[in-house]
Amino acid sequence: MPELRQNIVTREWVIIARERSRRPSNFSDDRYHHILTEAREVYVAGCPFCPGQEELDLEVERYPSSGLWKTRVVRNKYPALDPHGIPQRTVDGIYHRIAGVGYHEVLIEHPRHNITLGLMSAEEIALVLEAFQRRGIAMSSDCRIEHVIYFKNHGESAGASLQHPHSQIIALPVVPGDVQRRLEVARHYFRDTGRCSVCEMLHNEIHTRERLISSGKHFSAFLLFAALSPFHIWIVPHRHMASFLDIQPYEIVDLAQVLGDVLRRIYLRLHDPDYNMMIRTASVRESHSTYFHWYLSLVPRVVRIAGFEMGSGMHINPCLPEECARFLQ
Amino acid sequence: MPELRQNIVTREWVIIARERSRRPSNFSDDRYHHILTEAREVYVAGCPFCPGQEELDLEVERYPSSGLWKTRVVRNKYPALDPHGIPQRTVDGIYHRIAGVGYHEVLIEHPRHNITLGLMSAEEIALVLEAFQRRGIAMSSDCRIEHVIYFKNHGESAGASLQHPHSQIIALPVVPGDVQRRLEVARHYFRDTGRCSVCEMLHNEIHTRERLISSGKHFSAFLLFAALSPFHIWIVPHRHMASFLDIQPYEIVDLAQVLGDVLRRIYLRLHDPDYNMMIRTASVRESHSTYFHWYLSLVPRVVRIAGFEMGSGMHINPCLPEECARFLQ
Repeated sequence: MPELRQNIVTREWVIIARERSRRPSNFSDDRYHHILTEAREVYVAGCPFCPGQEELDLEVERYPSSGLWKTRVVRNKYPALDPHGIPQRTVDGIYHRIAGVGYHEVLIEHPRHNITLGLMSAEEIALVLEAFQRRGIAMSSDCRIEHVIYFKNHGESAGASLQHPHSQIIALPVVPGDVQRRLEVARHYFRDTGRCSVCEMLHNEIHTRERLISSGKHFSAFLLFAALSPFHIWIVPHRHMASFLDIQPYEIVDLAQVLGDVLRRIYLRLHDPDYNMMIRTASVRESHSTYFHWYLSLVPRVVRIAGFEMGSGMHINPCLPEECARFLQ
Repeated sequence: MPELRQNIVTREWVIIARERSRRPSNFSDDRYHHILTEAREVYVAGCPFCPGQEELDLEVERYPSSGLWKTRVVRNKYPALDPHGIPQRTVDGIYHRIAGVGYHEVLIEHPRHNITLGLMSAEEIALVLEAFQRRGIAMSSDCRIEHVIYFKNHGESAGASLQHPHSQIIALPVVPGDVQRRLEVARHYFRDTGRCSVCEMLHNEIHTRERLISSGKHFSAFLLFAALSPFHIWIVPHRHMASFLDIQPYEIVDLAQVLGDVLRRIYLRLHDPDYNMMIRTASVRESHSTYFHWYLSLVPRVVRIAGFEMGSGMHINPCLPEECARFLQ
């Protein structure tokens, strides 16, 4: 019998409909027919992110600033938003517009072309997280910016157009509706119970261990009870804080280890699947709220979003989250 | 300069960031490398939807009921929901569940394997719409059902696992959060202005004709001002009504013509792209509401959903809707 499960943090329902033919291991076969990241060339001629081929006019920062770089941040060559101007709002009858002011940057995670976060050392991953934090602080200090989205698309079906390991940062002049709703749901839960729903979920998952994948001193990673798709994982800071930008250096060290461990398990057990990763953090003006709790969401793209999901906003997950967790444990 | 546009019906913002390299015609080339629907075999051995190979134990209805059928409805072989039982809700600490009670049916649109709605006659499309309506009325009369989703996945990247032309119907024991929010937005607009936002949009689009693709006596199809992706189209009934199930026979005739015209333009100009189609109708208990207005949403899958969309709920559309409309006009 299928069941509907609700995520208490997002209040989203998902249909868990375990199909006979869809065991967790079904997602680890070679249906992708792609070349594993590590089997590619170390450096690729013509790749604008490989050392020696940098487009310097787009560069925002490099770390370290002299000698060979370990991470670089560049402006997106085809930006979704423009850093110049004022986010002027115009209302012309039913047509509402805002000038597309904001930032759209690319974080090059490593000089090597044939590496990915799941194959990097914790020290290397920490450098990526630090670059996220530096750029996020810079963008959030711009009074035109209301919200910052940190995300990674790994692989073509996850929307990546370049292979070289990279993430993206988009800073928006509005708070997206989805983000507003998550903040409201958190505020209501806090008002009704005096507690944080993410803290509650975290304590339960650490206690039962049924869906726990990896745990450090300051972060834990678990398959969601109401996972929207197979292997949908959250990585949650143990300390209750609204904004990713408040992460402390000792926490970055721990997050790098937990994140690396989770991505390595996914790389090895599922054979380098395409995935998306997002940091869900409070909007700029709510970054010191008492009720929100940021987290990192990881979605291996092993099932497709189709008409049902688009029409209802609900998802159908063909795998039991507890079975997926056991497969990665 | 990119711009943000808001859909007044959904209140969603989209980033319209026209990339130099992405003209509407870029989506019509042979990047899909697939065989056009019409170039396939007329009947395919082993296809469970082709005549003579029907799995009769799954059949719900066929039309006409004797002789050669023109449409058939069957239970999904791997259903997301089960029609037996009570949608019992259980709350165990933070774990909220509902038994997966509901309907999951497949509507086989035509006996022929190598046809698609865009190539069918208006009479044939009308039979499909009538079958939707019959099954929707039957499911909505079941007191356990709160909402019905009607959708079509055309092509593999749109989530279709079988080629034979078909749609799906899923009847849920809950009202999805997205549907609740759309109903609320419509209610607020109606309370604030005394008008329906869909009626307002429809009148504007018919008046300006800038984004209008096809228009009949009772239905009009237009590219959305705030299209979430290139060629994102709504087909809207001229008569203000909350539920698709209230559609009258003379309206079905007109919708079949407009829908066929739109799908034929997409098939020919974009070379049979994968697409999703959804009917957005009021939930069962709101089917006679005065403020909601149902419509059909069509999304050719020519761009990918990636981390930004998943993290923000917003979309980036690389094409100007007015240019996409001109391409189809």
